[in-house]
Order: sequence, then structure tokens, then C-alpha cells
Amino acid sequence: MNIVTAIDSMKGSLSSIEANQIVAEVFTKQGHVVKEVAIADGGEGTVAAVVKNSGGQQIPVQIKALDGQLVTVDFGWFESQKLAVIESAAASGIQYLDGTEKTHPLNTSSYGTGELILAAMEQGAKTIVVGLGGTGTVDGGIGLLSALGVEFFDQAGQLLPAKGSSLGQITHFSDEHLESRLAEITFLIASDVASPLLGDSGAVHMFGRQKGLTENEVDKYEYGMKNYQKVISGAQDDFSGDGAAGGLGFAIRVFLKGVFYSGFEFISEQTDLEQAIEQADLVITGEGQMDVQSLQGKVPIGIGRIAKKYNVPVIAFVGSFKGDQKRFSEEGVSVIVPIIDHITTLDEAMIEAKTNLYKAVQRTLDILLLMKE
Amino acid sequence: MNIVTAIDSMKGSLSSIEANQIVAEVFTKQGHVVKEVAIADGGEGTVAAVVKNSGGQQIPVQIKALDGQLVTVDFGWFESQKLAVIESAAASGIQYLDGTEKTHPLNTSSYGTGELILAAMEQGAKTIVVGLGGTGTVDGGIGLLSALGVEFFDQAGQLLPAKGSSLGQITHFSDEHLESRLAEITFLIASDVASPLLGDSGAVHMFGRQKGLTENEVDKYEYGMKNYQKVISGAQDDFSGDGAAGGLGFAIRVFLKGVFYSGFEFISEQTDLEQAIEQADLVITGEGQMDVQSLQGKVPIGIGRIAKKYNVPVIAFVGSFKGDQKRFSEEGVSVIVPIIDHITTLDEAMIEAKTNLYKAVQRTLDILLLMKE
Repeated sequence: MNIVTAIDSMKGSLSSIEANQIVAEVFTKQGHVVKEVAIADGGEGTVAAVVKNSGGQQIPVQIKALDGQLVTVDFGWFESQKLAVIESAAASGIQYLDGTEKTHPLNTSSYGTGELILAAMEQGAKTIVVGLGGTGTVDGGIGLLSALGVEFFDQAGQLLPAKGSSLGQITHFSDEHLESRLAEITFLIASDVASPLLGDSGAVHMFGRQKGLTENEVDKYEYGMKNYQKVISGAQDDFSGDGAAGGLGFAIRVFLKGVFYSGFEFISEQTDLEQAIEQADLVITGEGQMDVQSLQGKVPIGIGRIAKKYNVPVIAFVGSFKGDQKRFSEEGVSVIVPIIDHITTLDEAMIEAKTNLYKAVQRTLDILLLMKE
Repeated sequence: MNIVTAIDSMKGSLSSIEANQIVAEVFTKQGHVVKEVAIADGGEGTVAAVVKNSGGQQIPVQIKALDGQLVTVDFGWFESQKLAVIESAAASGIQYLDGTEKTHPLNTSSYGTGELILAAMEQGAKTIVVGLGGTGTVDGGIGLLSALGVEFFDQAGQLLPAKGSSLGQITHFSDEHLESRLAEITFLIASDVASPLLGDSGAVHMFGRQKGLTENEVDKYEYGMKNYQKVISGAQDDFSGDGAAGGLGFAIRVFLKGVFYSGFEFISEQTDLEQAIEQADLVITGEGQMDVQSLQGKVPIGIGRIAKKYNVPVIAFVGSFKGDQKRFSEEGVSVIVPIIDHITTLDEAMIEAKTNLYKAVQRTLDILLLMKE
């Protein structure tokens, strides 16, 4: 059989790449041909996924992490397309947060993500895909923009530092020194976050607490973000996606004319996923938790809808399933196979995800072949 | 397809009959032919299972429950074979225990199981299958034997009451009034309990606590059982199975020349299971908890071994699975499908067993048919 496997990451347990490798191992052993498509949502692992899918290079760059420490991270490079893929999670990700004052949102900066853009530009990129998600910053993109040459000033005309605490103090800005070569580059924003910059579902209220804002600080911080938005864009419409990655969506849209893509759409185009599915006998997908929310268009449903067009069966392996199989069948997901095989806690299940997936895939292949002997 | 389904009960959640019905419902809906074989281990549900399997009658009898109250229970009757099936759990089962003094092992009696034997004899039975398991008594069978006419005396020559408290006081007995027609009847003991009467894995030490003996009472009670055994059989060998059903195994073996069968063996013969499996395209089995212990010969392994002889694939649906699928494949169980589909507690899983089994069977059939469209 020709198999396409495109399992989304199971958060906290398995990356998309690892999950697909397990499927490939089981099916290849039985003589089937497996094409692995790593899924990325713009967050952590996006660069690794696209490089793995399409044979690009990973190019290391030294940049400043959100707390200013120098770190080396990779961006993805596709020479023939002059395409670079960077992820904000690598430069400005939550993994750098340590609960100290130094990494409090008031003191962190997306500066490093800006440096990644510069590095990609220097590499000769015509197109830069910026993956948003998994960041630890809530700086509205001040840091990123500062790295690219934009300057922010307070009422006294003082140049402000590129970090969260400046948001409320900005009265005007200058893009006079904004790197002019950026205008030649197409920016695509790969993100699955639809939040606006402000409000209850915005960058501050929705994501601020998990990045270190205390309950008491949220309102004041939101006020600063509102000031920043007003100075930058004259408080025009707050777009869906502006709030992604602590406001990086907003900054890239306004200054770099970035266009939003869903992570899945990007991967799908980049890997000719539709064509691969058309030629497949069976498609494998999956995710950590499958439930009614999945029907809103998470990865397995995206896969299912494509497969349905070509009448190719889809099996979804999931960490946990709650819902009505029928609803999923209608979207092209033929069978949902939960991978847990004994009573267990969520913590244990996450630790055992690799083994459980392996066994579930093996078991399913056994059933598929059972009546053919 | 021709399907045979023979799922063991999932204790506390689903009877064998119910589990098979779910399988039958899913497969029949798709046009397959399903033969249901209800499994019984000699315990509660044995009569219902054999009657269901082979179209016998259920005949109601009024007898004394373990605490002396009059209750009506059924035995199974197969006229053409002159075969009766009774279960000690119906007459003397743990369901009658209420934690009061009245149902303490010292005061309970297997008398009602003896009455069931008499009723079967009056019905004209040439063979009586006695299902052992699920009893609430630990009387060594004094009660059952008393009902059949055996008398037990103490040192002063006083006739002793037929209950647990008499065990330690017996000095001699008389089988002068033992119902003579019993000698013409073949007794088969259907039981999956391999305990001897005495010792650490015996009727008192292994099962006494769950029937109401306190920690302090166990040793003294064992002493009484030892006295009883010595008086009855001269302390000869303590056979495996003698300890089943609080010692009923011992009593039936010694006085009625009962021969031990495993519950599965009995069902298997009675339903021509081997022939049915030989003619099947697919066999379904299962149990609540599948693990290394299952390899010791529990129902799914029994089924697997038969199916392996005829090269018929076997799918086992299990509440929970811990183990190495390979070991089970070697025994003919081709695929093990756990029925849980989300993180859950054991209590919830038991409540949801019916729904979970239904969904798992549906999912498995979907996979079986997936590549055939």
C-alpha cells in the first residue's frame, strides 16, 4: 500500500515527526511505502518539520533570547526557492521563562525573532515564513521591530528600550531606520492563533498569565498594549491573528505586510499534500485530544477533508477521543483509534504515548490485514 | 462473514451474554452471521449462559438461601439430555450477605444448593452440572450434604445444625440417610477455582475474609475446617478445587463423586464450540482485564488455542490490556483491542463498558472493511 502519514504533535508527548516515524516504522516493516508529512502550527518544531518535509537546510544563527542572553538557534533555508522559515518560539519561546523578574513580561523582548528575520534576509530570502506560537513575550513586537530598525520614543523624546515595560510609555515612533531591503521580501505568517491584539481573547488577557503576568498586572499591561497599538496603527481595526505570539502578528502585519496562513495550509502547500493523498491507498493522521473542538478544523479534519475528495480512507490515532465517530466520518476521518490501552492517568498516558502509539498502529495494521490472509 | 463471538464477562460491567449481544448487533447490521456463545465460569450467570447457548428451560424452585430465608431460583434443564445445570451462587451466593451476624460464615449454610440438587434429581436428571463460584458460604458443604440426608454429630452424639459453626464440633457423621438415587447421577463440577480446602490458598484463608470472617477469626475457622475434613475424608489428599465455593468442591467430590471441569471446558463441549470456530471466518472474544495472568488459560486463550488449530483469526476486546501482544498471538489471539477510548478512572470505565465495547467493535469492523471498499 501507499501510505501518507500526517499526525499532528501530541502536546507534551510526541512531536509530529516522532509520531509519523512510528507509523512509518510499523508499515514499512510490512513492505508498505510510507510518505511522512510533519505537521507544524507555527509554534515550536515548525522549522524542524518543514526542513524534514522538504529537504531544506537548518542554518544556525546567534541571536538574543527573550531575556537578552545569547543563544544559537536554527532557521530553515530552501535555496532553490530563496525561502526562509523562522519560528518565534526558537528565539523568544516560553522555554526561556524561569519565573524570575528577569523574564517577567515587562522585561522580555522579541528582539531575537527580529534578528532571525535579518539573518534570513542576509541569506538572500525572497520569502520569509514566520512561525508564531509558543513565545514567552508579550511585547507587541517592539523587540522584533527594534531589531529591524524601528525606534520608539516616550513623551520626553527618549529612545525606549525594546521590551514590554515600554508599551505604555510610547508616544511616537520612527521607521526612518527600518531596514529598507525588507520591503522586497514577502512575509507569510504561519500561525494557528486567531486572537486579536486587545481584549478578553487578546495577547494580554488570554496569554499574559501563562507568561508571568500576575492577576493584578493584567489590566495595567493591557492599557500599555492599547497605547502601543494606538500610536502604531491609530487604533484601527484589531485583526484576528494580531495577538499571536504576544503581538508579533500585529507588528509583522503592520510593518512587514505579513499575510496570515494557518500552519496546516502552509505545510499542505509546501508538501503537495493534496497530491500525495490523492495517490495514497490509506492516510494516517491524529492528534493528542480529539473532541468536538477538532471539528472546528484541526489537523485531522483538514486531512480528512482532502482525503474525502479522493475517496481515500483515513485512520486517526488519538491520545484521547470524546465525540461521535459519525461526525468525523462525514469529514473524511473514517476511523478514530484511541491509543491508550489500559486505565491510566493523563500524566502516565503522556509518558507512555510513544509505546501506546506504536502498539495501536501495530494493532490496527493487524486488523487491516486480518482477513486478507 | 461467519462470526463466532464468545466474550467472557467483564466483572462488574457486562455479562458474557450482554457483551456478545453488542458484537452481534454491530456485525449483524452489516449483514454478517453471528453465533453467540455465552461464557460461564461456574459462578453467577452460569445457568443463564448455558440455557441461552443451548435452548434449555429455566425451572424455578423455592429453596433456602444461605441465611435460611426462602427464595426462588432457577436451575437449567435440558430435557433431551436429562441434564440439569445448577449454580451455587443462586442458592448460596454472596448477594445474600448483609454484614450482619445472621449472614456471618458461622451462621450460613449451603443447604439451598443441596435443595437445588434434589430438585434436579426429582426432575429426572441423569447428569447434574454444579456451577461453583460466587458463594457466600464457608461451610465445607455441610449444608449441601445435610439437605441430601447426611447427618453430622458432635462428641455427645448430638445432631449438629447444618452451618459453619458446626465444622469444629463434628466428631462423626452418618450417610445412612443419604438420598440413594444420587448414586445414579453423574455430577460434573464446573468451576474455575483451583483452591484446596485448607491452607493459605484454601477456602478459609483465601476467601473467608470477603465472606465476613474477621482477621481474628480466620485461624480458628481454619481449625474447624481441618477437623471437618479429617472426620469426613480421614485427612487424605486435599485436592485442587476442593476449596471452591467455601468447600462445596470437597463435599461434592467426596460424597457425589463429582468430577471437576473448568467452566470453559463445559461450555465449550456443550456448544460444540470447536466446530463453530472451525467454520467461522472470524472469532471474537474478550475479557475485562487482559494481562500475563490471562496466558494461564483464561477464556480468550482457550478460544485462541482452538481457533489457531483451524487458522481462524481471533480479535479480543478487553477492558484493559497490559502485556505483550506477541505472546497472545502465539496462542491464537491475533489482535487485542482495548475498549477504553479516553483517559478515565476504573469506576468510570466500568460504567461506560457497554458504550465503549460498542464503539470499539464498530471501530474494528470499520477497520476490517476499510480497504475493501
